[in-house]
Amino acid sequence: MTSAPTVQPKFLPSRHDLGLVAVGFSGGQTKAGVDAAPMALIEAGLIQQLEEDLDFSVTYDGQVHSYTDIMPKEDPDYRNMKKPRAVSAVTRALSQQVYEHAKSGKFVLTLGGDHSIAIGTVSGTAKAARERLGKEIAVIWVDAHADINTPETSGSGNIHGMPVAFLTGLATEKDEDIFGWIQDDQRINVKKLVYIGLRDIDRGEKKILKEHGIKAFSMHDIDKHGIGRVMDMALGWIGSDTPIHLSFDVDAIDPMWAPSTGTPVRGGLTLREGDFIAECVAETGSLIALDLVEVNPSLDIKGASDTVRAGCSIVRCALGDTLL
Amino acid sequence: MTSAPTVQPKFLPSRHDLGLVAVGFSGGQTKAGVDAAPMALIEAGLIQQLEEDLDFSVTYDGQVHSYTDIMPKEDPDYRNMKKPRAVSAVTRALSQQVYEHAKSGKFVLTLGGDHSIAIGTVSGTAKAARERLGKEIAVIWVDAHADINTPETSGSGNIHGMPVAFLTGLATEKDEDIFGWIQDDQRINVKKLVYIGLRDIDRGEKKILKEHGIKAFSMHDIDKHGIGRVMDMALGWIGSDTPIHLSFDVDAIDPMWAPSTGTPVRGGLTLREGDFIAECVAETGSLIALDLVEVNPSLDIKGASDTVRAGCSIVRCALGDTLL
Amino acid sequence: MTSAPTVQPKFLPSRHDLGLVAVGFSGGQTKAGVDAAPMALIEAGLIQQLEEDLDFSVTYDGQVHSYTDIMPKEDPDYRNMKKPRAVSAVTRALSQQVYEHAKSGKFVLTLGGDHSIAIGTVSGTAKAARERLGKEIAVIWVDAHADINTPETSGSGNIHGMPVAFLTGLATEKDEDIFGWIQDDQRINVKKLVYIGLRDIDRGEKKILKEHGIKAFSMHDIDKHGIGRVMDMALGWIGSDTPIHLSFDVDAIDPMWAPSTGTPVRGGLTLREGDFIAECVAETGSLIALDLVEVNPSLDIKGASDTVRAGCSIVRCALGDTLL
Ligand SMILES: [Mn+2]
Ligand SMILES: [Mn+2]
Ligand SMILES: [Mn+2]
Ligand SMILES: [Mn+2]
Ligand SMILES: [Mn+2]
Ligand SMILES: [Mn+2]
Repeated sequence: MTSAPTVQPKFLPSRHDLGLVAVGFSGGQTKAGVDAAPMALIEAGLIQQLEEDLDFSVTYDGQVHSYTDIMPKEDPDYRNMKKPRAVSAVTRALSQQVYEHAKSGKFVLTLGGDHSIAIGTVSGTAKAARERLGKEIAVIWVDAHADINTPETSGSGNIHGMPVAFLTGLATEKDEDIFGWIQDDQRINVKKLVYIGLRDIDRGEKKILKEHGIKAFSMHDIDKHGIGRVMDMALGWIGSDTPIHLSFDVDAIDPMWAPSTGTPVRGGLTLREGDFIAECVAETGSLIALDLVEVNPSLDIKGASDTVRAGCSIVRCALGDTLL
Repeated sequence: MTSAPTVQPKFLPSRHDLGLVAVGFSGGQTKAGVDAAPMALIEAGLIQQLEEDLDFSVTYDGQVHSYTDIMPKEDPDYRNMKKPRAVSAVTRALSQQVYEHAKSGKFVLTLGGDHSIAIGTVSGTAKAARERLGKEIAVIWVDAHADINTPETSGSGNIHGMPVAFLTGLATEKDEDIFGWIQDDQRINVKKLVYIGLRDIDRGEKKILKEHGIKAFSMHDIDKHGIGRVMDMALGWIGSDTPIHLSFDVDAIDPMWAPSTGTPVRGGLTLREGDFIAECVAETGSLIALDLVEVNPSLDIKGASDTVRAGCSIVRCALGDTLL
Repeated sequence: MTSAPTVQPKFLPSRHDLGLVAVGFSGGQTKAGVDAAPMALIEAGLIQQLEEDLDFSVTYDGQVHSYTDIMPKEDPDYRNMKKPRAVSAVTRALSQQVYEHAKSGKFVLTLGGDHSIAIGTVSGTAKAARERLGKEIAVIWVDAHADINTPETSGSGNIHGMPVAFLTGLATEKDEDIFGWIQDDQRINVKKLVYIGLRDIDRGEKKILKEHGIKAFSMHDIDKHGIGRVMDMALGWIGSDTPIHLSFDVDAIDPMWAPSTGTPVRGGLTLREGDFIAECVAETGSLIALDLVEVNPSLDIKGASDTVRAGCSIVRCALGDTLL
């Protein structure tokens, strides 16, 4: 049984106003089905839980956006990227949607979709936080993967493995139709990026993480220190005076609890650790936005309801639900 | 392979004498089958293990009590409670049974049955400890649930969600046939109550826990500190000079290892953590009584033997079995 | 994605030279199939991973040794041991194979086979380390079991439960055909032996561990301190100036992840903890040899590929693979 959260938000005028964006987009990778996640999460009762149990006033346009009207007619590979114009167009539109919620002081919850959509969500909150609060945001990226490949280091060319590169400016592009629309005030600082849960990193990504001194807690670190101390360290790195955008890839959770996802990797977070991470971030009072991505109910049908429940649980915990 | 425990009991004259009460009672909730648990545990070899491996002399009347002779003919709901007279009559009789074992200096092991039976077991040991030792007992309640609803805060009216309220005097009733038989010397002090494993608490219960400053370690606390430090804190709160009654609801264990129980909740203790809790309590030398409740072999048939094995393992660990 | 390790070995002239011995032997216990493990591990790509990802130069004679030519014609029980002459002959031959790799400064990786083969591997590295480095080795024995029964304390008579007794000299025998071939310079010091993961110890073994003050971390200790601190303590006990032989029995891992093994025991290491142990040992730079034993792909067919993957993962981690 849940009850209304008691933590007062530091960077939001009210703890009740939440803007929800549902993004039915799967173009950042190759497996169909991840676009059905927002509806599965909503049908599992997520909005009702936010309103009734956690006392949020949810602003939601009632539709899962698939952005079919802005899809490019032709979209050949470019610099090794697959569907670059489609992902660019969708994330640009999403960035604007998220920006508008965030600019008006709402907490922004985005339900994906594959992780490429974070190019839209993070750029939207980064810009709004600069304008509304005069602050750079921090990003906590919970994921089995680092998603920081540049088009050149990527093996697959799938853009859901590249969002952090575009958001940090490690990858740039002049063509406005292929992420050239991303401006400096929509970018984030690599020093304010923290990874949790990493366990499947490409060789080129390891090099990037090291060269840029990016803070990353792998599963090895979680085993070494325990998730309690890891969260202390992660939040200590960010500091108490920084708004936080939490981008949560459900594949961070071990396939034992969240099997229905496109690129599952063994040795992941327990369900308890996933909820714990979200709870700790909620306790800071600094959280201003949350993405939940990569739930794919069409993969591992038997495990789909477990995966959806894990997703709902993470969202509730990040939004202040507590056990006691 | 087990071996005889070496810890000397602080509050029992001999470490060998154990009184066993088998309670085949399911009236504190609505699902049939939990009354079959004592026989399932015994058939799995539990008594033999206590005698041969752990060197106990077991006093057992050889029967699983179903108390059919004292069941009320009519038992309408009262103050929202379901089967109030039946649960009252059974726990009153059980309280006397437990009291007699405890008064004679025996360790008391009670195999449930649903958790309503703890009204009988704890009241029995509380009274005996006052008389025999001149001491208030502490209670460690290991459970996914707090079981501290009053008749008025309870949603379901099932009494297995209320035992702690009656035991602490937070709920009282004058009618002797409906728990009016509980006297002050059978009650426990809320300051000597410690919860471990909580993760599904009703809103009214959260309020009670806060208002009375009751010590409770939720799954969040276990993730934050690790089970090792949580046990240090739990046992530190109780102190070394207090007899302990351990009331272990098998639903504290995650359904992955103990699925056959009436109200399973995800995100629970691992089997290892469950055993560890029991081992730590055993190491104090202060344990004087143990309840093992809510095993229901008729639910999740496939997982029944796992659940029974988990139950046997918890009992053995609490009675001094060690790995090394 | 793996990448070449960066830790420089303290006791090997080059970090690239690895000698591989594949031992298809199951005579230390009674279940057929454990002799098929080396081929299963190799077919899963283990050698390729060592060469391509971890940059090892692997010296391998290309065969899984079954030692049929040296099997005794008759092999009656002796001092309660089953197949004593067969196990003695095989481990004697294996000891020489391992010694030759180790003497030439190679890291020695042995794929078993049941755990009796460690009589051969450890005796081989112990002798080579004395000659090449003038040092006694330490042994880290990761296992659900202590494998330290003497022929007299063993209940089963299976020699895979006795290797540590013969290696430490707690069990000795003059007959050269029944382990009489083991010389002092092939033995190890009980003070340099550390167990991790114990949870199923025979009564006689408990007595041996206590009497000889052998350092042992049971699952209880891992729950109490967390695997991070346990590894600090284990490696602190050994010290930084001692070559380490890691003998890893896959049954240390919980059956949830590694079910295909002869004597599975619940309540074991998680896959993450197993990898973590191997990673921590690798980080010391002191590791000179590794055994991976007791994978039995013919048991729990459904779980065989998981078990083989767990085995490959442990080997890669021990050989320097890291997440970041
Ligand atoms: Mn991702
Ligand atoms: Mn991912
Ligand atoms: Mn209960
Ligand atoms: Mn319960
Ligand atoms: Mn072994
Ligand atoms: Mn073993």
